[in-house]
Amino acid sequence: MAILSFLSRASRIYKGYPKLLVLCTLGLSSGGLVAYSESQLDTRAPHVGPNEKEPEKKRVVVLGTGWASTSLLKDLDASLYDVQVVSPRNYFAFTPLLPSVTCGTVEARSIVEPIRNIVKKLLSNGYFNKSTARSSWSSSGGLVTYSESQPDTRAPHEKEPKKKRVVVLGTGWAGTSLLKDLDASLYDIQRKGEVKIWEAECVKIDAANNKILCRSNIENNLVGNREFFLEYDYLVIGVGAQVNTFNTPGVKENCHFLKEVEDAQKIRRSVIDCFEAAILPGLSEEERRTNLHFIIVGGGPTGVEFAAELHDFLDEDLVKLYPAVKDLVRITVIQSGDHILNTFDERISSFAEKKFRRDGIEVQTGCRVLSVSDKDITMKVKSKEEVCTIPHGLVVWSTGIGTRPVVRDFMEQVGQAKRRVLETNEWLRVKGCENVYAIGDCATIDQRKVMEDILIIFEAADKDNSGTLTVEEFKDVVDDILIRYPQVDHYLKSQQNLKDVTDLLKDPQGNDWQEVNVEQFKLALSHVDSQMKSLPATAQVAAQQGAYLSRCLNHRIQCEENPEGPRRFRGSGRHQFRPFQYKHFGQFAPLGGEQAAAELPGDWVSIGHSTQWLWYSVYASKQVSWRTRMLVVSDWTRRFIFGRDSSRI
Amino acid sequence: MAILSFLSRASRIYKGYPKLLVLCTLGLSSGGLVAYSESQLDTRAPHVGPNEKEPEKKRVVVLGTGWASTSLLKDLDASLYDVQVVSPRNYFAFTPLLPSVTCGTVEARSIVEPIRNIVKKLLSNGYFNKSTARSSWSSSGGLVTYSESQPDTRAPHEKEPKKKRVVVLGTGWAGTSLLKDLDASLYDIQRKGEVKIWEAECVKIDAANNKILCRSNIENNLVGNREFFLEYDYLVIGVGAQVNTFNTPGVKENCHFLKEVEDAQKIRRSVIDCFEAAILPGLSEEERRTNLHFIIVGGGPTGVEFAAELHDFLDEDLVKLYPAVKDLVRITVIQSGDHILNTFDERISSFAEKKFRRDGIEVQTGCRVLSVSDKDITMKVKSKEEVCTIPHGLVVWSTGIGTRPVVRDFMEQVGQAKRRVLETNEWLRVKGCENVYAIGDCATIDQRKVMEDILIIFEAADKDNSGTLTVEEFKDVVDDILIRYPQVDHYLKSQQNLKDVTDLLKDPQGNDWQEVNVEQFKLALSHVDSQMKSLPATAQVAAQQGAYLSRCLNHRIQCEENPEGPRRFRGSGRHQFRPFQYKHFGQFAPLGGEQAAAELPGDWVSIGHSTQWLWYSVYASKQVSWRTRMLVVSDWTRRFIFGRDSSRI
Repeated sequence: MAILSFLSRASRIYKGYPKLLVLCTLGLSSGGLVAYSESQLDTRAPHVGPNEKEPEKKRVVVLGTGWASTSLLKDLDASLYDVQVVSPRNYFAFTPLLPSVTCGTVEARSIVEPIRNIVKKLLSNGYFNKSTARSSWSSSGGLVTYSESQPDTRAPHEKEPKKKRVVVLGTGWAGTSLLKDLDASLYDIQRKGEVKIWEAECVKIDAANNKILCRSNIENNLVGNREFFLEYDYLVIGVGAQVNTFNTPGVKENCHFLKEVEDAQKIRRSVIDCFEAAILPGLSEEERRTNLHFIIVGGGPTGVEFAAELHDFLDEDLVKLYPAVKDLVRITVIQSGDHILNTFDERISSFAEKKFRRDGIEVQTGCRVLSVSDKDITMKVKSKEEVCTIPHGLVVWSTGIGTRPVVRDFMEQVGQAKRRVLETNEWLRVKGCENVYAIGDCATIDQRKVMEDILIIFEAADKDNSGTLTVEEFKDVVDDILIRYPQVDHYLKSQQNLKDVTDLLKDPQGNDWQEVNVEQFKLALSHVDSQMKSLPATAQVAAQQGAYLSRCLNHRIQCEENPEGPRRFRGSGRHQFRPFQYKHFGQFAPLGGEQAAAELPGDWVSIGHSTQWLWYSVYASKQVSWRTRMLVVSDWTRRFIFGRDSSRI
Repeated sequence: MAILSFLSRASRIYKGYPKLLVLCTLGLSSGGLVAYSESQLDTRAPHVGPNEKEPEKKRVVVLGTGWASTSLLKDLDASLYDVQVVSPRNYFAFTPLLPSVTCGTVEARSIVEPIRNIVKKLLSNGYFNKSTARSSWSSSGGLVTYSESQPDTRAPHEKEPKKKRVVVLGTGWAGTSLLKDLDASLYDIQRKGEVKIWEAECVKIDAANNKILCRSNIENNLVGNREFFLEYDYLVIGVGAQVNTFNTPGVKENCHFLKEVEDAQKIRRSVIDCFEAAILPGLSEEERRTNLHFIIVGGGPTGVEFAAELHDFLDEDLVKLYPAVKDLVRITVIQSGDHILNTFDERISSFAEKKFRRDGIEVQTGCRVLSVSDKDITMKVKSKEEVCTIPHGLVVWSTGIGTRPVVRDFMEQVGQAKRRVLETNEWLRVKGCENVYAIGDCATIDQRKVMEDILIIFEAADKDNSGTLTVEEFKDVVDDILIRYPQVDHYLKSQQNLKDVTDLLKDPQGNDWQEVNVEQFKLALSHVDSQMKSLPATAQVAAQQGAYLSRCLNHRIQCEENPEGPRRFRGSGRHQFRPFQYKHFGQFAPLGGEQAAAELPGDWVSIGHSTQWLWYSVYASKQVSWRTRMLVVSDWTRRFIFGRDSSRI
């Protein structure tokens, strides 16, 4: 407390720029140490501490450590906010490799990185170019000046801020003496802040009082109460989704899922169990076959990749170790739709089906699972309305996703009770809640239709209130339209005959209208909303949303002064930010046997061994840390040399 | 069955050497395939199959896949026996690295190897020099002739067998045509057999009827009955020992153990739990301290190594991630004796105690634990007879070992009910049971005393029944004495004034007796039994016992004809084999901070960083497969570069 009072006194004396001075004074001891002592104070009363220290610092609470939350944390400037993270897992998992973990192609450890490591990097490097940061570390307590340009994927439309920012890392003699003489009116001086992480689950969001209730999920009999409250100024919900059983009886009890790392490890053990149980003496061949019948429900990317992995595991490793039963194994993929991988290009899905047929993996399309018991699974074949029951050794359930209870409860509070899934606006802000954002699988963006605003747009565009719109007038608003309603752009891209947006304003004969009235305007834009589709629940979307939101939070203050968004058609002025816009980089579907299929931007499709290598390189490069990158690559190498491990641990 | 009947017919025709022909005929199809088809028959009825196939083939059942059983299986000639292995774990674990697994220095996967992989090698390579085997593989279906000389550690006194052995690996055209013309009277021709492995636990040994009851330990709801019987001609018990709680209340419920791989993984998760629970908001500092108090009961090598690992984990990795609580951590080692590592040289144990004091690891010697609750541990300090209770976050119990229930039950059957642990004779055969052997931690060797046999020895030595023994007469029997009673050799080594065994026959003045009578003979040998000590329960002993037993089983037939053991003093002739003799290669004690202590043969002691590197190289070289070797080394490298992973999985 002594140090705090001293600081407040200091800041009282130098009214001009108190924050700068506070930072300098703290700077007198090692920055690292300060962070520690702070956290020691804070851990005692985290929802009081920050207020004492820096009242003006807003409190951001982030729920979850998945793709969305982690990419948010990676870029969030912790010096601007008092950041707290609440998640039942103290690590980030590279989920696209989960299917590989189920068969030991990749080890579980290789795809997880402690969230604290990720945040630690953030603390030392801030959210600017890492290499710069390191160099500045080496020159202990040096100075880093940088323009705020970011990787283009994140902010393709960056503007230079007026005031350069100075971030001081480490504050030995060099840094301190430098700060003493630095003119704070020329620079915006900052020290990196600190992120607190609690391994707990948010069980209740109290939107009215801006606080959440958390409960630790540690089973061990350790002392201390398990529940605590956190207050927030901004809440970011990134808790992801849960498995959707569609209330099919017996699924929860008898099926494996493939969402968490633990699930993958459990599946791996169970697969070995099936083989060990099948070769035991005294079983009938029928019993052996049953134990070795692996069923995958859901022909999406996850299910298909798992089926492929399982087939490879069996084909490359297990036949050698369990020759006696190698001919009794059966893998079945059950898909409710007419094709597996139906979110992919049909070239890919048909290739996948052919390959599976060659590999002896059965694909049963058009089947709806009615119930799952410990011994068999019952399903209805849609085509011929008949119900059949098959015995199984192991069932993996990888169908759609559902809303978590805590989110469901929150939806009722903010008047979204009737909705299927939590809805946000185009800026990822939860509808009906000013200071809560939702990113990743737990929410969906409700994109506003052009036709809903068509009249306002017309009025806004029609400057001279002539009741008609000239092409020039239209051109003035067209950029804002394109930004505010991304579907217009998609629509233009989808139409060959439309080179330019103004081509919309042509009469059926293709001649330019000199002027259009409301009705013609409506007609012209009547189809643009047809291109609206909600974003898929993928890591790619979540990561982009996290990065987008971190940028908004980092620029909150600047953009309040000079907003960078499109003009408001209803109401005056501009939106503070551009709405979130998703950029699709394509998707992969590994099909086993060193073959993969890829859907690339621009309707490209790539299939085969080369694609598998593309897959390897992309997934290696996308790893969150050099540690996991090295581990994943060495796992792949190990698998090539020695095969997969079949020890039952 | 067709093929079997054909074989039996074939063998009936050529009475001379049926076995040879059977093998050749099987040889007509690929050896590998035959093995498979066999196993397909056998898995159905394993205790019938072998009898049908080769009635003369004895059935060996091995219990366990630990050090003893695995080293037995690695060298056992599967062509001589119908070998079956029963173990609840389908892998071999390199247990000396378990403490490293508890903190993630080494991954669990890196120290386990599926027993089937180990046995597969055995099948392809037999039990002779592996390189020879490979070369013979490459020349598909070639021929391997080899003298039976083995690594010296195993058989230092090998004799050349009269008949060379021919082992045919793979039987394509080359191997088959070769076998057709080969004169079987000159060679003893063999094909490698097959080892069957059941992942199950032996729950009951029925010594009277030569069969065991096994129960599968797979929890999953798979079909087929879980229990089955196996018949044996020879049973090898290598099930190891279980943790000994000395009936201390609360230990089973509230303590972690460190015997299985799962234990180590559980400890790793729990350590992270303690930290995550300790930094949660709203705890008092006292509660934080409690959650971060790690107690190790037992100051043996395992406990000490775990304490050291834990300290390194904390010191090198966790302080960075949990700075807020780094000063609240406490590690305590509770030892009932006066010193930790009391089985080691006192130079080592005192060094260890000093180092721990420097590292801030508390060592409480002379304490007996009375009870363990979920929150605290109660113990009695022997010196000042006082009872104290300390709160804890995690307790690891690594004291002595106890007998498993199945072994205890077996002991009652064979009249060893009163004994503390299963006893075998010097040939590892269980006392009171002709065809059962016990190796590893589950048994102990009851070495016969010289003084028990002193009279018989004297009579046997006194050829002319003169009632006195000349030095010459003594010299005739001395070799047999040294082999039959290893303690004599140890005694001579321990006495400086005794250069040669005949020096025993000196009168107190040091002059040679020309002749000794019974009383003088007794006097001379009166002290030799003092050097008898039972072998420690270490991996080293277990591995040597397994290798020894495999050799005995492989040479059973030859040694029945010409026994290689010492002469029988009671009764005539010689013993079939030499008794088992343990060769101590020293032991390690890693002490953390890249320092280790080593006790080497010949009373050498090595301590420090160099010893740690010796430790690394020895443990890397001792790995059971190249896979695990690569993994362990890469784990060590990974740890050096990136530190240990603290993700809670």
